[in-house]
Amino acid sequence: MATIYFLMGVAGVGKTTIGKIWAKQLNLPFIDADDLHSDSNIEKMKRGIALSDEDRWPWLTKVHSAAVAEGSTKGAVIACSALKAKYRALLVGGLPEAYWFFLDANKETIQDRLKTRQHHYMPASLLESQLATLEIPEEAIHIDTSLSLDEIILFMQQSVALRNARIGVIGLGIMGTAISRNMAEKGWQLSIYNREVPDKEESVAKHATEVYPILSTALAFNELTAFVKSLGKKQYIFMMLPAGEATTMLIKALMPLLSAGAIIIDGANAFYKDTEMLQKQLAIKGIHLLGCGVSGGEKGALKGPAMMVSGNKQAFEVVAPLLKCIAARNGSGNSCCKYIGSEGSGHYVKMVHNAIEYGEMQLVAEIYSLLSIGLALDDASIATIFKQWNETDLESYLLQISGDILATKHNGAPIVSLISDKAYAKGTGSWATQEAAKLGVPSGMFTVALNTRFLSGNLAVREWVQQYIGVINKNMNTSPIDISLELIEEVYKLVRIWNHQQGFALIMAAAKEYGWPTVSLATITDGWRAGCIIRSTLMDILAAGFTTTDNLLEIDYCKRVMKNNYSSLVKLAANSMEAEIPIPIISEALQSILQYKQKVLATSLIQAQRDYFGAHGFKWKNKDTDNFQHHNWEF
Amino acid sequence: MATIYFLMGVAGVGKTTIGKIWAKQLNLPFIDADDLHSDSNIEKMKRGIALSDEDRWPWLTKVHSAAVAEGSTKGAVIACSALKAKYRALLVGGLPEAYWFFLDANKETIQDRLKTRQHHYMPASLLESQLATLEIPEEAIHIDTSLSLDEIILFMQQSVALRNARIGVIGLGIMGTAISRNMAEKGWQLSIYNREVPDKEESVAKHATEVYPILSTALAFNELTAFVKSLGKKQYIFMMLPAGEATTMLIKALMPLLSAGAIIIDGANAFYKDTEMLQKQLAIKGIHLLGCGVSGGEKGALKGPAMMVSGNKQAFEVVAPLLKCIAARNGSGNSCCKYIGSEGSGHYVKMVHNAIEYGEMQLVAEIYSLLSIGLALDDASIATIFKQWNETDLESYLLQISGDILATKHNGAPIVSLISDKAYAKGTGSWATQEAAKLGVPSGMFTVALNTRFLSGNLAVREWVQQYIGVINKNMNTSPIDISLELIEEVYKLVRIWNHQQGFALIMAAAKEYGWPTVSLATITDGWRAGCIIRSTLMDILAAGFTTTDNLLEIDYCKRVMKNNYSSLVKLAANSMEAEIPIPIISEALQSILQYKQKVLATSLIQAQRDYFGAHGFKWKNKDTDNFQHHNWEF
Repeated sequence: MATIYFLMGVAGVGKTTIGKIWAKQLNLPFIDADDLHSDSNIEKMKRGIALSDEDRWPWLTKVHSAAVAEGSTKGAVIACSALKAKYRALLVGGLPEAYWFFLDANKETIQDRLKTRQHHYMPASLLESQLATLEIPEEAIHIDTSLSLDEIILFMQQSVALRNARIGVIGLGIMGTAISRNMAEKGWQLSIYNREVPDKEESVAKHATEVYPILSTALAFNELTAFVKSLGKKQYIFMMLPAGEATTMLIKALMPLLSAGAIIIDGANAFYKDTEMLQKQLAIKGIHLLGCGVSGGEKGALKGPAMMVSGNKQAFEVVAPLLKCIAARNGSGNSCCKYIGSEGSGHYVKMVHNAIEYGEMQLVAEIYSLLSIGLALDDASIATIFKQWNETDLESYLLQISGDILATKHNGAPIVSLISDKAYAKGTGSWATQEAAKLGVPSGMFTVALNTRFLSGNLAVREWVQQYIGVINKNMNTSPIDISLELIEEVYKLVRIWNHQQGFALIMAAAKEYGWPTVSLATITDGWRAGCIIRSTLMDILAAGFTTTDNLLEIDYCKRVMKNNYSSLVKLAANSMEAEIPIPIISEALQSILQYKQKVLATSLIQAQRDYFGAHGFKWKNKDTDNFQHHNWEF
Repeated sequence: MATIYFLMGVAGVGKTTIGKIWAKQLNLPFIDADDLHSDSNIEKMKRGIALSDEDRWPWLTKVHSAAVAEGSTKGAVIACSALKAKYRALLVGGLPEAYWFFLDANKETIQDRLKTRQHHYMPASLLESQLATLEIPEEAIHIDTSLSLDEIILFMQQSVALRNARIGVIGLGIMGTAISRNMAEKGWQLSIYNREVPDKEESVAKHATEVYPILSTALAFNELTAFVKSLGKKQYIFMMLPAGEATTMLIKALMPLLSAGAIIIDGANAFYKDTEMLQKQLAIKGIHLLGCGVSGGEKGALKGPAMMVSGNKQAFEVVAPLLKCIAARNGSGNSCCKYIGSEGSGHYVKMVHNAIEYGEMQLVAEIYSLLSIGLALDDASIATIFKQWNETDLESYLLQISGDILATKHNGAPIVSLISDKAYAKGTGSWATQEAAKLGVPSGMFTVALNTRFLSGNLAVREWVQQYIGVINKNMNTSPIDISLELIEEVYKLVRIWNHQQGFALIMAAAKEYGWPTVSLATITDGWRAGCIIRSTLMDILAAGFTTTDNLLEIDYCKRVMKNNYSSLVKLAANSMEAEIPIPIISEALQSILQYKQKVLATSLIQAQRDYFGAHGFKWKNKDTDNFQHHNWEF
């Protein structure tokens, strides 16, 4: 199959130089799209006039024809700016295989290059309009042209080699198996490995190749050395083990088996500090570890999860075709595999994803309480309400599955009524609370959700309170209370926004504190629009909004809901309290908004107390730039 | 001055053996109180009958006379069981200087010894009654008799040497200076040290000896080597630097200057993990680091703080006379310096102390809001109410100083109205939230207090909310709301108990998780009855209660208040919400109690969600011992 390699990017980025070398390496013809411009286009550019779509169309058609011609024989390398997605769609039409490299550089570097360039019709002045026109390609291999030519060519070789490489997958639990099947479905060759534990985990990898036809051609291993050997020289390994010790131990065992240039992708819910520690240790041997938060559960892993990746950017670009190919795609057609930033930022963002998820789950549970206790509705009726809401801007994956769950019966009874209410938690929710406390970010929403899980298992205190203070049985509320379905719906909308707001505030605080300049809420939310557990219509709205602001509250929809629904929040909280319906996360939202509403908080008394007993000092009102004052409290 | 050394403890613990060696070492006469028993007492004991107070009194008087006689000449070593505090009071009456060693051992060891003992009138059967009679002496040097005789004698020498040693103090900030003055007041010889920083910290130690007459005989240093040299062979150093890097750096600088056996007491608010790391590093050189949480602010440090000490128990016993002597004394006459346990447990307990303090401060601030916004009272009137409450079981140091503060005017205006409401926080509050999240302990009370401080400084969000949702000015509440002073008082009492409950739950969880078996809530609260910032009548009640239970809720007073005041909490929360008075910590208390009251929590829906998207499994109700179930959610 003949491949056309496109090198794209704005003028001056090095398309021709790199393209010629690349073509020579592969022994393919090189086509410079610039050579195919009409005289009128060249004239226009010489005069510093930007080309219009109409100017470009005949030219692009010419380039496309050349590509088709070469594609039918041995392939070619084509240098072409291809700034817009629709240009690229035109160019690849009907080609057997196209491979895109996007050459990227900062504006200053390009300007310098353009200035020194002789005999070219493209004046430096046109750069601005090119940069404005450029739609950065999601799918292309991004090449950092600040690297040396040798480094760039090596990187291009690696990227192309990936497609022919055998990908390793370590850990065939629920998630690892699903990821393997996903990769195999998309045509990747696999070596799969699972450890051998007598009586517990025996021939797990081999078993997977027998159970799933799609994995029948995968090589199965229960011995690490043979597994690594099967990968050949290109060592790309996706790991899916329990976070923490299991992951760390395996990476230590892998280290002596791998060569410089190997790339490990850790898909576990690892603590970002652990990821960073391992990255440093592996870097000494020239091995890259990419932290990769994966969301979507088993189904997501199988059909397309959301993936939040961090670590060395070049290493990411090498394996990006693999990861982007197995990830979910959102409504705009973008892959939900996103590069977040350096170090452990991918796992960090996944941690916050889960914190928002904790808040969303707790909120749905409280809405359920309000409907079942407050409005005395049964599970089936609530399932119907959830389904109706899922046709509105309240739509979310978590609301959808909650509706499914409430509609489910087991032995004739609503299944939820049969399930123990002791809720469990893994690491991420707890870590998010710890991080927020560390960075000084209010975290009430997810901390309440976490604490609710903790206290659900605090049986001794539950028994004590029920014995000495009283017990509340569900549906014991006989007197109707003043809460309507509309009121609940309005509060649900508002509290969701507040919950998301706290999560994004934590991400921005971390990006600042830890020095992750590439972290972008627009990128992150674009990646959360599909595949992940907190995908929702709200996320679509936020993703669009974050393209122009980093402040969720400045997004029109959020502004409107917060403003319009606030009085419902007050009313619902007061009435629920009187009726003794627990609404910890809703109440927390109200309390924090209420505090923000105060012109003056009672915390000035706290500052005075701190100065009284500890001489910590306080500042005078409206003089926050002044030094701390100490009052001589004499009594 | 002639000293009488008493060796006390139950029969069979080694008083005579050790006492004889000790007497020989010091070239003093040895008196065995057992030799002074009357024939009738001996007869009684031989028959296995325990002595009564009446039996003991004439005997103790005889021992006392012997002590007085020897004390007037060169001193003596006396072995005497002296099981009760009143016996010991009788024994030391009129003595110039008495020195108490308490010989301690576990019951099994003593029983073994008693069995092999010949020619003694005391049958092993009387041990039980002796152990029941024993009141463990707070003030004595505790000797672990499981050590070898050589070790015991060395330890006794060190303890006695302490009194003649020159104590080092490092760091002469507010707290370090106050601690130095406190030590000097109690007659300890000091070497004091502060680093030299040109233009910032110049001759700080020397300056302190000039400013404070009590420090005029202290040796002042700004050079570490000379400072350590001045201590001679007994290197006991109290450090009071900012926690974290400053402390770590100085300890690293000290390390090469110190010899094995040196003891450093770190009085900073260190993170317990840092303390443990330093303890390990110092232990390699045989140097002991005692973590020592100090509470009480400058005044406490000067007049007697509460001190929570941890690390090597023997090292603690060596410096205990110093620390106990400068600490506060509570209403029962006990020193508020307490040994908490091994490793960093002292700093851990101090961290929780501060978390409770955060909750108490936030709660007072909310009570202030309720009184000022809800009841439209001015600061002076609220000060009066606080003073009145301080005559009741609501009495606390924090309430007292809050009354003082509200009664304070500055340029004619209530001072609190002039102070910026941006509240600051140092490490401990944040660490406590992080620890609770880590250990799975609900921490709503102190987390809310922490978050309130964070959000007070979140000016962008405050402005946004005030612009788009609305602003509330203090005293804008014109319509009277249905909250009475009595209602507020009842809620204040209840929420304080709930706040303390969360703190003690965290301590118990940590003791279990980290393996600190000696951690005792009775000991800790006895130490918090004076000197510290959260001392209060409630703490007196808790200290008494914890002698019989580790569960705060089982203490009668707490049980009563929780039961009787709960309905006031519901009423106050609902009404405050309607009136938009922020009460985050009160509301958090209600929400968590409300959740505990539920026979069934909505968290069963959360468990179903977790199983739906992540196959995490759930348990059937009332079958918590069963395995996790996975439902095949098909939609």
